[in-house]
Amino acid sequence: MPKKIIRLTVRDVRFPTSLEQHGSDAMHTDPDYSVAYVVIETDQGMQGYGLTFTVGRGTEIVVCAVEALSALVVGKSLEEIVSDFRGFYRLLTSDGQMRWIGPEKGVIQLATAAVLNAVWDLWARSEGKPLWKLLVDMDPSKLISCIDFRYITDALTEQEALDILVKAQTGKQQRVDQMLKEGYPAYTTSCAWLGYSDQLLKQLCTDALNDGWTKFKVKVGADLEDDIRRCSLIRQMIGPHNTLMIDANQRWDVGEAITWVTRLAEYKPLWIEEPTSPDDILGHATISKALAPLGIGVATGEQCHNRVMFKQFLQASALQFVQIDSCRLGSVNENLAVLLMAHKFKVPVCPHAGGVGLCELVQHLILFDYISVSASLDNRMCEFVDHLHQHFKSPVVIQNAHYMPPKDPGYSCEMLESSVQTHQYPQGQVWKKLQ
Amino acid sequence: MPKKIIRLTVRDVRFPTSLEQHGSDAMHTDPDYSVAYVVIETDQGMQGYGLTFTVGRGTEIVVCAVEALSALVVGKSLEEIVSDFRGFYRLLTSDGQMRWIGPEKGVIQLATAAVLNAVWDLWARSEGKPLWKLLVDMDPSKLISCIDFRYITDALTEQEALDILVKAQTGKQQRVDQMLKEGYPAYTTSCAWLGYSDQLLKQLCTDALNDGWTKFKVKVGADLEDDIRRCSLIRQMIGPHNTLMIDANQRWDVGEAITWVTRLAEYKPLWIEEPTSPDDILGHATISKALAPLGIGVATGEQCHNRVMFKQFLQASALQFVQIDSCRLGSVNENLAVLLMAHKFKVPVCPHAGGVGLCELVQHLILFDYISVSASLDNRMCEFVDHLHQHFKSPVVIQNAHYMPPKDPGYSCEMLESSVQTHQYPQGQVWKKLQ
Repeated sequence: MPKKIIRLTVRDVRFPTSLEQHGSDAMHTDPDYSVAYVVIETDQGMQGYGLTFTVGRGTEIVVCAVEALSALVVGKSLEEIVSDFRGFYRLLTSDGQMRWIGPEKGVIQLATAAVLNAVWDLWARSEGKPLWKLLVDMDPSKLISCIDFRYITDALTEQEALDILVKAQTGKQQRVDQMLKEGYPAYTTSCAWLGYSDQLLKQLCTDALNDGWTKFKVKVGADLEDDIRRCSLIRQMIGPHNTLMIDANQRWDVGEAITWVTRLAEYKPLWIEEPTSPDDILGHATISKALAPLGIGVATGEQCHNRVMFKQFLQASALQFVQIDSCRLGSVNENLAVLLMAHKFKVPVCPHAGGVGLCELVQHLILFDYISVSASLDNRMCEFVDHLHQHFKSPVVIQNAHYMPPKDPGYSCEMLESSVQTHQYPQGQVWKKLQ
Repeated sequence: MPKKIIRLTVRDVRFPTSLEQHGSDAMHTDPDYSVAYVVIETDQGMQGYGLTFTVGRGTEIVVCAVEALSALVVGKSLEEIVSDFRGFYRLLTSDGQMRWIGPEKGVIQLATAAVLNAVWDLWARSEGKPLWKLLVDMDPSKLISCIDFRYITDALTEQEALDILVKAQTGKQQRVDQMLKEGYPAYTTSCAWLGYSDQLLKQLCTDALNDGWTKFKVKVGADLEDDIRRCSLIRQMIGPHNTLMIDANQRWDVGEAITWVTRLAEYKPLWIEEPTSPDDILGHATISKALAPLGIGVATGEQCHNRVMFKQFLQASALQFVQIDSCRLGSVNENLAVLLMAHKFKVPVCPHAGGVGLCELVQHLILFDYISVSASLDNRMCEFVDHLHQHFKSPVVIQNAHYMPPKDPGYSCEMLESSVQTHQYPQGQVWKKLQ
């Protein structure tokens, strides 16, 4: 049946997380986790749901950008889009006028992600499959046809990408079965936000250990003595064999990052995340080189704005862990490009998640990565944060610190309509009460 | 007198330039030159005017972003802002919530530019000076206090920046006098937009030569045979001793750029501008290296989104001409950082201009660069495009292919109120007629 998209709506939905310091870090001290929430509807009455994540003020700008992109989507059929998804991706990201205000970065790319996430959701629903399964079952050449290779052919050609996918067909069913049984390994960031007291941190750590968590991330970067105390505390709580990661959220300059992290080396972090500007490829390369002798890797990506940036991070050996984001990049299409490049450069992918809906979305991509690209779990894990899942129709399922593969058709980011209405900004009840 | 900013208004102003193919290039085939136009007002009745340049659709998104930033400006006094301009810059670019949708890139940075351009305009007016003179007369340590050095200290420290400015105090008055007499050298892009016919191109070239122009830029990148014909034609028209530059507006991948430009080498272009993605530092470095033996440099910058990117382009020897933009970067503050870095790395600055208001704005910055930073005109020139100047209160003055220093107080981007109203989108008369 033809599925012409006849309507796109977008809403500004915010959760007042700053009231309890959830999500606080060295640069984002008072985030209100938010989404620009997109619903597309077909003339057959089918719906697709998409979102992009933001942290409060400014969400209205992304909403405005989604509205601007809407004209390029409404009127197209799903068949038309997916029969030339590369072309459609290019249409959205390279509009002769709108590309000026990007291109492929910041607000306009976040909006592109929201719209395309909804399109992918619609596609998966129309096939009656969860998104990861749609991808896993898809013919490699069809997958390749969704990727815009513009600006990355010096690092990865279409043929190389195809070869990677074809090669990973071997053992695929085994990995599907394994994932369905065991799930994908996760780590938790819920224990140690910067605004939390030591008392709360200890309590959350104890609870997490009891729930089977073995990998923990701590926010650092605001105050060195404070970081030493908190890292020491956490390392004490989790013992020498569990994994610790630290995250500075872009707080430092290059030299400062090296000095600061060196002081924290005794707590044996696996990686330092976002040590400096997300744009500073050469800076990350310098930091990587300096920290390698200490056994500390560099992780970044949640604010890496497109495949061209990831390409260079890989080319320059500027990161040792690729942190893809389901909403920062241009949806599944651009993430496919990054997963394939990471594989070629032999760098593990450990997705960014948390916020609102990021866990729900990115679990699909990392399942695909394991089953159809990397075929490896070495040094790999997906971030998990235990907030706001109750607002989703198909919330993530975590068992024994693993993401269990979603079973419902789609991309898992349909929200409860009641949650959307209550949290709509500024007219929703939650916000009216706070005024 | 205290000058508290009590109001900020922003309007979406568009010119239907696409109707005549003005400004058309390989990636922007139908630009409608536009601005998000900002007016700030003080409680003393004084006004400051600022803008950021866009090319049509999407301007409304930038307008929305300016509105979001407005709360950080209104209520502050000019004195308060300029007494800690670095802090104010950081306030706008690092808001704990809004930085997520950048940071310092795309829509939100374009909006920051519009707002800060208005603040600089107000400052210059309040001192009764054109902006370039405000900068030239300013104490070096005061200038330094306007720059946010976050993320660039590995390339340029505050002390190094200060030393550059102090050193350039020598001979300053002489250079002021020279500029007032001769003006700053310009080149023209008006002759060879991609959408122009050969006939029109010839006519415009003849006129430009008669007007004293010696440096010409041609748009390339859509079709190689077409480019060969057009470059050959222009080289024939201007003769062997005048200067030719070519501009691909990001059309190619890295390998393709090298092959294509090599085919155009016989027409002896001084530079190839924007050969590939504006984000691809390493790609530009590869292209620079490949074209150096042909005597062709690489120029880029009009879509280089912040000082961190320029830093790396310089560190990686990825460009031989730095093309600053008065609206892409965070206003004068961030451009100061780039001018100083370019000087340290010994790379000439040749600003991007054209569009609407870009010539009016950037002339101030390049005058400052010559008088107070570089003290050199070697390999330096500022782009000029002869469109839409009639809409400004103090339009640029070109004499014998040189920018003559502006004399009116401010930053030269106040528009005629009648032009603003007629071209406001979508309600202005010009647009109503086109509907």
